[in-house]
Order: sequence, then structure tokens, then C-alpha cells
Amino acid sequence: MTKQIAGNYFEDFALGQEIRHATPRTVTAGDAALYMALYGSRFAMQSSDEAARHLGYARAPMDDMLAFHVVFGKTVPDISLNAIANLGYAGGVFARPVYPGDTLSTVSTVIGLRENSNRKTGTVYVRSVGTNQDGKTVLDYVRWAMVRKRDPESPAPEPHVPDLPEAVAPADLGLPPGVDFSAYDTQLSGQPHLFQDYEVGERIDHVDGFTIEEAEHQMATRLYQNTARVHFNQHVEKEGRFGRRIVYGGHIISIARALSFNGLGNAIAVAAINGGRHINPSFAGDTIYAWSEVLGKHEIPGRRDVGALRLRTVATKDRACADFPLEGPDGKVDPAVVLDLDYTVLMPCRV
Amino acid sequence: MTKQIAGNYFEDFALGQEIRHATPRTVTAGDAALYMALYGSRFAMQSSDEAARHLGYARAPMDDMLAFHVVFGKTVPDISLNAIANLGYAGGVFARPVYPGDTLSTVSTVIGLRENSNRKTGTVYVRSVGTNQDGKTVLDYVRWAMVRKRDPESPAPEPHVPDLPEAVAPADLGLPPGVDFSAYDTQLSGQPHLFQDYEVGERIDHVDGFTIEEAEHQMATRLYQNTARVHFNQHVEKEGRFGRRIVYGGHIISIARALSFNGLGNAIAVAAINGGRHINPSFAGDTIYAWSEVLGKHEIPGRRDVGALRLRTVATKDRACADFPLEGPDGKVDPAVVLDLDYTVLMPCRV
Amino acid sequence: MTKQIAGNYFEDFALGQEIRHATPRTVTAGDAALYMALYGSRFAMQSSDEAARHLGYARAPMDDMLAFHVVFGKTVPDISLNAIANLGYAGGVFARPVYPGDTLSTVSTVIGLRENSNRKTGTVYVRSVGTNQDGKTVLDYVRWAMVRKRDPESPAPEPHVPDLPEAVAPADLGLPPGVDFSAYDTQLSGQPHLFQDYEVGERIDHVDGFTIEEAEHQMATRLYQNTARVHFNQHVEKEGRFGRRIVYGGHIISIARALSFNGLGNAIAVAAINGGRHINPSFAGDTIYAWSEVLGKHEIPGRRDVGALRLRTVATKDRACADFPLEGPDGKVDPAVVLDLDYTVLMPCRV
Repeated sequence: MTKQIAGNYFEDFALGQEIRHATPRTVTAGDAALYMALYGSRFAMQSSDEAARHLGYARAPMDDMLAFHVVFGKTVPDISLNAIANLGYAGGVFARPVYPGDTLSTVSTVIGLRENSNRKTGTVYVRSVGTNQDGKTVLDYVRWAMVRKRDPESPAPEPHVPDLPEAVAPADLGLPPGVDFSAYDTQLSGQPHLFQDYEVGERIDHVDGFTIEEAEHQMATRLYQNTARVHFNQHVEKEGRFGRRIVYGGHIISIARALSFNGLGNAIAVAAINGGRHINPSFAGDTIYAWSEVLGKHEIPGRRDVGALRLRTVATKDRACADFPLEGPDGKVDPAVVLDLDYTVLMPCRV
Repeated sequence: MTKQIAGNYFEDFALGQEIRHATPRTVTAGDAALYMALYGSRFAMQSSDEAARHLGYARAPMDDMLAFHVVFGKTVPDISLNAIANLGYAGGVFARPVYPGDTLSTVSTVIGLRENSNRKTGTVYVRSVGTNQDGKTVLDYVRWAMVRKRDPESPAPEPHVPDLPEAVAPADLGLPPGVDFSAYDTQLSGQPHLFQDYEVGERIDHVDGFTIEEAEHQMATRLYQNTARVHFNQHVEKEGRFGRRIVYGGHIISIARALSFNGLGNAIAVAAINGGRHINPSFAGDTIYAWSEVLGKHEIPGRRDVGALRLRTVATKDRACADFPLEGPDGKVDPAVVLDLDYTVLMPCRV
Repeated sequence: MTKQIAGNYFEDFALGQEIRHATPRTVTAGDAALYMALYGSRFAMQSSDEAARHLGYARAPMDDMLAFHVVFGKTVPDISLNAIANLGYAGGVFARPVYPGDTLSTVSTVIGLRENSNRKTGTVYVRSVGTNQDGKTVLDYVRWAMVRKRDPESPAPEPHVPDLPEAVAPADLGLPPGVDFSAYDTQLSGQPHLFQDYEVGERIDHVDGFTIEEAEHQMATRLYQNTARVHFNQHVEKEGRFGRRIVYGGHIISIARALSFNGLGNAIAVAAINGGRHINPSFAGDTIYAWSEVLGKHEIPGRRDVGALRLRTVATKDRACADFPLEGPDGKVDPAVVLDLDYTVLMPCRV
């Protein structure tokens, strides 16, 4: 009787299958402090209980991306332990704030399956829902990953690729009841620019760079109880494709979000993840930079105090972003690009 | 008047001597978060307040080994600042849970002394008792260390080697009142195996490997306020026996315990440390693996919801454990082995 | 419209100008745990809620230097983003304890300006006041930095150098009401020496050394939300003056304070920073040592339970301090010295 966690292979998944993931996790002020030490985030509402209360929150909520990583981490042993690549995200909605003391659990449903033509792998689409101790949804998102087959000969399932939204609709963003950003003071961020000050197509270089250390990305990834082996085992990875441990892609997302404070300092919360790709792996020693483009400006139904900015944030390694690197003249993605993230933030309006 | 802490030498200890150690320490949710970031532990009861309450605990207790390291750390300035080696452990009982907010203190009693034949060192046996703010015992264990003499000419004490139990008796395990594991759900760990599913002699490879970084072991060891100098000072250690800082042996214990989740995911708490040896030193850059053998299965008097598994967990460096390395055909311990720990865990029974 | 934080240049400052800094910050038990993991501090009152309550505190206060770094960190984007050097500190008073849950904000006033003769830089003197959520001052200090001019041709302001106290007067130290150190027990620190046992001119080698890792100083500096770029970006710094990231000077202060426990274990709190200079930069890989000299012994008006020791603590890198290095026979500062800090601690009296 084998007792180890073997993870699922492509043929273990069935359309409609529901997977209740292990390891409920109470997040605390300790996690918030570690998150700050790891990323140096300065968004005021997550930094200050007083600022958050002033806006109608119970207290400073956890950073949205910390909640994302914790909810995501639980899915790894069941969904992606035998994955080759995490291919994409869609339809991610941060439905309500996560506070210190909340206990998070995740349930996933298989919403798509398609075997690859090489018969060795297939794409698994799952919708994962993170809930708190009251059973309320805090995060709901889709991801898809390329997962190995246990046996290339096993039969392919009926292919099914789910319809995925191009972006989360503004009406679907989760604004907690009782919250009012009319009283938002730009003094909190030291940056004067509010919703009205951003234009679609505008691009912002976030200027600062941030060098990754092995201890940092390992501590972050363990904090999220993400068990993907490539992040932790140099003894194996030194023989692998890159010769070293690979940084969890979500660590880059959090670095990029923290860097984006410089130019987007009033983007007080992440409301949605519309899509995203980890374009290249990152490693300890890489210095991460980022720039953002405003993809859309959306009023939120019934709200005059806050609007939604749809952003594309691109992160690079060892390359400053003053010229907004993405695609070269040949149409190929610049090899320095590591992340291309499409997401929606909340930003107070000037009222 | 010298003001520095000089530590005790072998001739400073007397049989029956009681030492009240310095630095009471309040442990918090911050410590629990750091412990998770350092080891990535996934045992459900320590991860989730909800899971813990469901089983009758007040909330998620601190990881047992975190409590061990904090209680142990206090003894270092008095017992082992001038030690050459920490030789062994025995009779360690985790008497009650430690919760965030508890304040831990340690008192040790010298229970054995034996000078070595070279007259330069001697073995000191101490029983250390960690208590909480109510004066209740949380941990009670014996360790012995080889300690330098200040002066080889000072007279040897009457040799006294204490009787030490081969293992903690199941009746002596500390099960908190009101706790009931009948409601334990293997969903919490994602692993189906319970007390009945393990057999004496069974061996389990914990598969995963975990590469140590200097920043990680230093942060861990400082968190425990363990001041042993070999862990922190590269300027001195580069001239030393190994040319580098030595990882605190307890860090390896915590790594091994975290790795053991893979195959022992329902071993919800450590109830006793029966014995243990740090066989080789570990260093930053080493990748730690582990395997376990079931040494015994014990019913706990009066309990049908939970049993005690006595385990031997062996940790190695830079060597996978699929073949359960320990002794070679020559009877010598495999040089990759760093830890050989004999301990007892609680595991829910299928009821 | 440029949205990035550009920081202020010398000509942007005006005498009497008040700057309300961004990013209020709630400090928590999570920050206290990280601080312990980063520095291994063992001062009892900050380590134990029980010890602190016994002396009349509400609970264990945050380490004074953690409060200093958080208050200081807020000033960086406005005061020293374009600074070449942080030149000195004066008149720093820790006015009241900071507890977990407190939210800190900082306001600075420009109290001095003097252009340098090269016309490229000038010295800016600011008094910064850190307050808690009740608007009460927790820390009040002066620092001065050499800041670049945007344009060498811009006119020089009328030079004004503020009068700064040589040291904070004992009557100005912030002793919280209700606190009584008569019940202080040296058992808490394991060190018997109290106020009466120190003599002016006495020098103490703190013995231990502490090797800095990149991950550690980066995590510390981000925890303080200090955004000075030289600490985080190896991609830029590898082309810079030193070829590597520079450790935040405050990290060295905290290391030195933690090391000073060995010999000053009953220096229960830092009450004032009288002055200080970061004499040389430190880098990852450096091992920090420290020694202290007693500069003064001061009774505190109305108190017999506690006195004030004025200390000079000198930190070095890669050089032990048994011979108290500072100035060589040529009058030049020993190149191993990195910090020369003049501060005042509280120490219980033997009553």
C-alpha cells in the first residue's frame, strides 16, 4: 500500500469532477508581516488597520495576491503535481476581503480536458473556488495546466475546452458592502493620481528593480503551502533543464504588484485576474522590473467613489522597463519578459 | 568585572543542580507564520483554527517542534555554550498544546555527570522542563551533551549516568482533555491512511527534498533564540573544522517532520521524543530527504479515537531515500545520514 | 503626466516645510516575530508579554529599533530618495512604547538647509515625528542627509544649520506612566549586572559575530517599507561603486543592539538616540561584531528603580572587538568600523 502523494495524471481527471483540496489554512497577521517582508508592499489599505477602517473595512485585509497564492497552493497536490506547465488564468474574481483569522479552503471542478496530439500530455482546465470559514467565496478563478499522462496508451477523453471570459465584467467585481472610497486620501500613498487621471493606452514604467534570493522565494512558496517540487530541491534541479530551482510564478506576480505601487499607488485592491501567462521562468539572482499599460477604464455600476482599471502588467528580468519591452519588431516576445498579466484593480475616483 | 555570558564548563555543573534559564518567550501567530514559511508544514491541525476547534482544541496549536526548539533554545547559554556535541535526547513528552499567546520558560536539572577519560570533557545530562504562563508543563525532556572542562586538572565528579527510558510509555503521552479525534476527516490532509493502516516494520520514503539556505537556518535558529555560535558566524567558522556555519540540528528535525507529511499526513501531532542523534552536520546548500519506519503501534489507554505510532525518521543530505539508507553492509552508518530520530506521533483511528 | 515617485531634490526643500509621509503602517505580532528571526533579540521585556506586564507595560512592546525603522522608512521617498548619504542623527526620543496593533505615521519638518560648495548637493536637516493611531508621539528625532540638486544652477537657500543637542537630557526620556522596574528580576536575562554595576568609561566586548545574508537584509528593509533602491537591485548595483547591494544602515544598528545583549542584557529599552554615523557600508557576507563604551550614567528625575546609561556602541565587520577598535594611532577610524552609535538605554537599578 503506497502512502505517498502521487498527484493526478491526465487520465485521472474527468469532466465535472469535483476535488476538495487538503489543508485548510488560517491566515494571520503573521502571514501579512511575512508578505510585507517578502515584497515590501505599500498599498495603504493592506498596510494600515486605520486606513482600512476609515474606508469601511473591518480592518486591514490581507493582500489579495496572498489570498490568491494560498487558495492556489492547495490545488497543487491534486492538479499540478504532474504538470509540465501552468498555461493560463481566466475569470478570477476576488469576491470578498480576506482578514487575519480567516480560514481558507479550496474546491476545484474540472471544466475542460483536451489531450495533446503527442498523446503524452493533456490540458486540464479547473475552476477553483476559495472559501472562508463561513463558506463564503473569497476567490473564484479558472486555470489550465499541461499535465502528463501516466500512460500514453490510455484513451483520450472527449475534448472539451470551456468558454472563458476575455475579462471579468465590472458588474461582477466583488465590492464589499459598506465600503466607501469617497473619503480616500491620496496622502496615504503619497501619489496624487486617481481614476480620472489614467487613460486607456497609457503606459507606466514602475522603475524599481528587485533581486530575488533563493531563501525569499522558497519562504514565500512554503508560506502558501505550495508543494511543487521544482521550487525547493536543488539536488534534483541541478540535473534538470535549467540547472537550478525555478521560482514560483506567483512570486513574480507579487513582486510585479508590489513594484507597480510606483505609478499606481492608489490601485488599492486587485479585483480580478482576467488572464495571464508566465512567459519565462525566473531564478534566484534575477532582478525583476515591471511596467503596466492601462487596457480599460470601467465605471462600476452604482458607484461614483471608485472605478475599475484593467491593467496589463509586464515583468522582465535583468532589463529595465523604460521602453516597455514586450514584443520585438519580429513579433516575438522579448526574452527578458517573464510575466504578462491582465488584471483589474480598484482605484478611488476624485469626487 | 566581566559582563559577558561565558557559559558553564563541565566542572560548573553539580548533580541535582537546578538552572532557571533566561528569556521567557511569548509565542504568537507571527512565529507560526514564520515556521510555515521556513518548513512548509501542512499538518492540518496546526494549519487551521477551524480544524483544530473541530477536534476539541482551543485553536490551532503551535507546531510541537517549534515549542521544542523554543524550550531548547533557552538552555543553550547555560548548558551547551561550551559543548562540543549534543549527544542525545530521551524521555521527551509534549505534555500539552502551546497556543499563540503562551509564554514559555525553561528550567533544567542536572541529572547525570560523567567525565571523559581524556579529562578534557565530560557528559552532562539535563532534564529540561518547559512551562507556560500558568506554570503548567508543556514539554519535559532529557538531553545530554559533551561539555568542555575549563581546566583539565579540576577533579572529576562522582560519575552518575541516569536511567533513561527506552521510549515514552503510551500512558504518559499528553492528550489534552476534551480532545476527540473521532471526527477527524482525512480530507484535511488529502491522505486516506489512518492508525490501522500502518504496520510495524513498514518503511515510507517521504520522496521530497528540501535545499537549505543560510538565511533560512539562521532565521529559524534566531527565532528560537538559540545562541550557539557555530550557526551564525562565518568569519569564525571559515577557519573552523568545516569551513562554514553548521545548521542547528533542530532545523533538520523540523525539515524531516515537514517532509514526513508525504506518507504520514495524518500524524497530527508529535507526542514524544524517545531518542535521537544528529549523526552528521548539515550545511547551507544541502538538500535534505527523509524516510520513516514504524517502530511500534500502541493503543492509548482509554482512547479508541487515536493511537500512538512510534516512528524512526532518518534524514539524509543530497541522497534520495527510496532505498531507506541507514547502515551499509559494513554496519557503518551511511555518510549521507544526518539525523536518526525516534519519536511518537498521534494518529486518528478509523472508527 | 509622470506618475512615478521621483523624490525631492535639494532645491525642493524649504525651511519650515512640513511633509506628511505616505503609508501608515499597523505593526503586529507578525512584525515582532520577524524582527526576532532577523536579529535574535533576547531582551526580556520585548520577548515576553508576562515579563512586560510584570513591569507595568500593557504587554510586550515592539523592539524600539523596529519602531525607529518603520518611522524612518516612511521618510525615505520624500527625504532621501535622491540622497547620497545619510549623515547623522540627533535628539532622538522614544516617547512611548509601540504595541502590536498600533498604526504608525510620520511627519517631517525641514529644520535646516545648507548647500555644499560644489553646488551639486546640499545638506537637508529634518525633524521627523512618528505618531500612533491616537496621534501620540512615539518617536521624535532629527536626521540630516546629503541630497542631490536637480540643477546645479538653481539658487542656494539661505544656509541654516539647526542647533542640535549633544545628547537627550535624562529628564526628556519617555518613561511610560505606571511602569515600575523595582520588580525587575535579573533571572529574565541571565545576567546579574544592573545600573550600579556599570562605570563611565567601561568598555564591553559583545563577543558574538553575526553574518549577514542578502535575503535577511532585504526582508528587514522591506518590512520597514524602506524603498531606498541601493538595497534591492543587484542588476543596477553590480555596475555601481561597490558592485553589490548595500545593507540598510539601520539593519546594522539592529544587529549591534541584539549583539549588545551579551554584556548589557538588562538594558531593557532604548530611550534615546543621541547621535550616530554609518562610517562604512556593509554587504551580504560581512560578519558584524560590536563593542560598547559607557559614556554616561544618569539618574532619571523622580526615579529610583531605573537609570539611564548613555552608551557608544561601535560595530565592525569581519573583525572581532576584544581590543575595542575605533581609531588607529594615526587618528583615522579603523576601516573595519561600520557604525558609531551614541544612544541611551534604560537599565533597572538594584533597589
